[in-house]
Amino acid sequence: MSTVEPRIPSGFMELLPADQIVFNWMLRTIREVYERHGFEPIETPALEYSDVLLAKGGGETEKQVYEFTRGDRNYCLHFDLTVPLARYVAEHARELVFPFRRSQLQKVWRAERAQHGRYREFYQCDIDVIGSNEPMVDAEIPSVIFQVFQELGIGSITIRMNNRKVLNGMLTSLGIQDRATEILRIIDKVDKIGWDAVEEEIGKLSIAPSVVKSLRKFLEIEGKNEEVLQALEALGVDNELFQHGLVETREILQAMALLGVPADKVVLDLRIARGLDYYTGVVYETHLDGYEKIGSICSGGRYDDLASYYTTEKLPGVGVSIGLTRLFSQLKEAGLLPKLPRSVSKALIIPFSKEQRTQALQCAQALRAAKISCEVSLESWNLRKHFRYASGRGVPFVIVIGENEVQKGVYTLKDMEKSEQRECTLDELKQALS
Amino acid sequence: MSTVEPRIPSGFMELLPADQIVFNWMLRTIREVYERHGFEPIETPALEYSDVLLAKGGGETEKQVYEFTRGDRNYCLHFDLTVPLARYVAEHARELVFPFRRSQLQKVWRAERAQHGRYREFYQCDIDVIGSNEPMVDAEIPSVIFQVFQELGIGSITIRMNNRKVLNGMLTSLGIQDRATEILRIIDKVDKIGWDAVEEEIGKLSIAPSVVKSLRKFLEIEGKNEEVLQALEALGVDNELFQHGLVETREILQAMALLGVPADKVVLDLRIARGLDYYTGVVYETHLDGYEKIGSICSGGRYDDLASYYTTEKLPGVGVSIGLTRLFSQLKEAGLLPKLPRSVSKALIIPFSKEQRTQALQCAQALRAAKISCEVSLESWNLRKHFRYASGRGVPFVIVIGENEVQKGVYTLKDMEKSEQRECTLDELKQALS
Repeated sequence: MSTVEPRIPSGFMELLPADQIVFNWMLRTIREVYERHGFEPIETPALEYSDVLLAKGGGETEKQVYEFTRGDRNYCLHFDLTVPLARYVAEHARELVFPFRRSQLQKVWRAERAQHGRYREFYQCDIDVIGSNEPMVDAEIPSVIFQVFQELGIGSITIRMNNRKVLNGMLTSLGIQDRATEILRIIDKVDKIGWDAVEEEIGKLSIAPSVVKSLRKFLEIEGKNEEVLQALEALGVDNELFQHGLVETREILQAMALLGVPADKVVLDLRIARGLDYYTGVVYETHLDGYEKIGSICSGGRYDDLASYYTTEKLPGVGVSIGLTRLFSQLKEAGLLPKLPRSVSKALIIPFSKEQRTQALQCAQALRAAKISCEVSLESWNLRKHFRYASGRGVPFVIVIGENEVQKGVYTLKDMEKSEQRECTLDELKQALS
Repeated sequence: MSTVEPRIPSGFMELLPADQIVFNWMLRTIREVYERHGFEPIETPALEYSDVLLAKGGGETEKQVYEFTRGDRNYCLHFDLTVPLARYVAEHARELVFPFRRSQLQKVWRAERAQHGRYREFYQCDIDVIGSNEPMVDAEIPSVIFQVFQELGIGSITIRMNNRKVLNGMLTSLGIQDRATEILRIIDKVDKIGWDAVEEEIGKLSIAPSVVKSLRKFLEIEGKNEEVLQALEALGVDNELFQHGLVETREILQAMALLGVPADKVVLDLRIARGLDYYTGVVYETHLDGYEKIGSICSGGRYDDLASYYTTEKLPGVGVSIGLTRLFSQLKEAGLLPKLPRSVSKALIIPFSKEQRTQALQCAQALRAAKISCEVSLESWNLRKHFRYASGRGVPFVIVIGENEVQKGVYTLKDMEKSEQRECTLDELKQALS
């Protein structure tokens, strides 16, 4: 029979088991931390009706949607978890309790142009609190993220935070709020093109040079968070939203400290705007210290109106998303992945010959009953081949059961890394492997 | 703004958080048991190239594949985890160690005709051992499934087992092996149409009545496993495959007992053929005792050649699959779902007024550090509304912190189910909630 070359589409990530173990551990760790903070899990279908999912329409993202017709309906694969959340909350509003704290960790799909570090299928790990306007909740979200990265143990992170109320208040006080979207888009490029180019581009929007200067002065404020706050106060901006944003930002920073985020791990950064139009309050980005060039590994913010396309009810909220697939691939490249055993099996039990299989199976049963992961090498191999299999798989321990062991009622336990072996009773085995 | 009705496509399952918690717990339990038996996790892309995934072609399943064109390529959503496994093993053969023990728990998609209990998106939870011909492995697979259902705690199961070697050997000895596929398809219907109708249909395949009688005599053998084995031996069938299958079946049953499966929970059932052409050895079905009408909740078997469409190398193996989405929905209907708390939060911490928020956040931090899941009710509500929120969410405990508690350095802990409350120190809180 002629065969087809087995291969997956480009832009899709597929891992060997040893890496998959690390990936799953990271996913599970994120889920556990989210749930420890009371975020209820939901999961939405990968496929949705196009007319529902794309109700908002337009935008760059829509061009990247995998969409198709089946029967007389158009379907698409969800391209993020935010639109499905909006649909879910609007659809189930009467059955949910608000504020609704939800976590959602699923794959999403985007037909991105194939390039290094971009994936067409990737995990998003989202939390949101819907139906709350409390600034304390704005403080809680990044504290959860801080805890996630602590437990992932991949290095320290810095959370960069801004408040769109301060930014929008400033723009209003300068009389340029009507061109906010364009201005924000230009400001977002400052790290790439520099201040002079930004000033020039903003100037093209028929904004007076003096106004551009004031904006630049505002955006260049830097320093410790308290210094930034004081500098902002000193600007004496006569705008309610701005002043409200200032008070709120201080409150959020205080609450974050209470929630265990070290003061030097949160940086007020007035230039973070996060392109998306729909953020209306605090916005966050997260960088891995020493690996800032990776970009933000977790972003989000507060919005006024989550589900305006599905319900007339205003649903304010705040949330954040970790793009795990991209993060994983970048950590792998940088050699920063958490170190875990290469196999889910803690031990491979080797019956020296067929005669010891009964004992091997019984030993496996006893270990598993003690929640120790193990397996029996059931092939008719010589000892050397069994051991080669164990090291190929990356199993940390090997248990050999031969005639001698059966007679003495013991097990030979070998630590594969240390290359040490000793005789054990079953209880000692359990202890050594727990 | 006009709104779009928020809704999901029919045939897709979407759960409220309380049910999602149960679903996730079941998924996690299955994964844990699989991994405790040394099955390494893999995950394959949801989208594959059509020419690769559908290389085998034909069959009912292909009509149900969600397929579409994007750019100049055809893609489809995987409709099971077996074909992706074949592709994965063929693609990564040099990087894998054989026997390759893999577990895979993912959603698959099939454009099934919409009907009760059928889903178009559903989880499959698969394990397979690739590259082993050992009958002991055939015994291990159902023992893993037995353990899974023990830990799921949804009731006892019976594993029905057959061996295609015995069946095919019998057919060969009767000289009707060439019509095996048609005969097996007819036999599969026996429970629906009865023996007389089966005999009549088989008779139409120009098979002599005496041969049909012999086949029926063989297929009607019933009893305890040892009785069935002895009755099969007594037939004196002069066929090597048949005799080999008998010896092997006895060996598998013995090993299953060693692996902790009670003898009365495995039933030799000579009529199980499992439609699929590619099973060549042992085949399994699993029924929930007392709920046999649900059908098989977990099925699988041994095959000779997993990946013939991708590689010329023969890859024998054995595996099994749990269809979790359908199982979940049927357990829910039957009121058999595992009972779990409705919320991931163990406790809701209520600051009596804004003044106690600091203490509430600190308490939450302390509990979370002890891995206790909790959250702070951060809205500016009166106590009654906080409590209504707690019971709406289904949080089992509430911790109230008022002025009085702060002064005394204690916490008021309320058990929501028992409606009992008492004052606690932080340590007592941790103890009560662990």
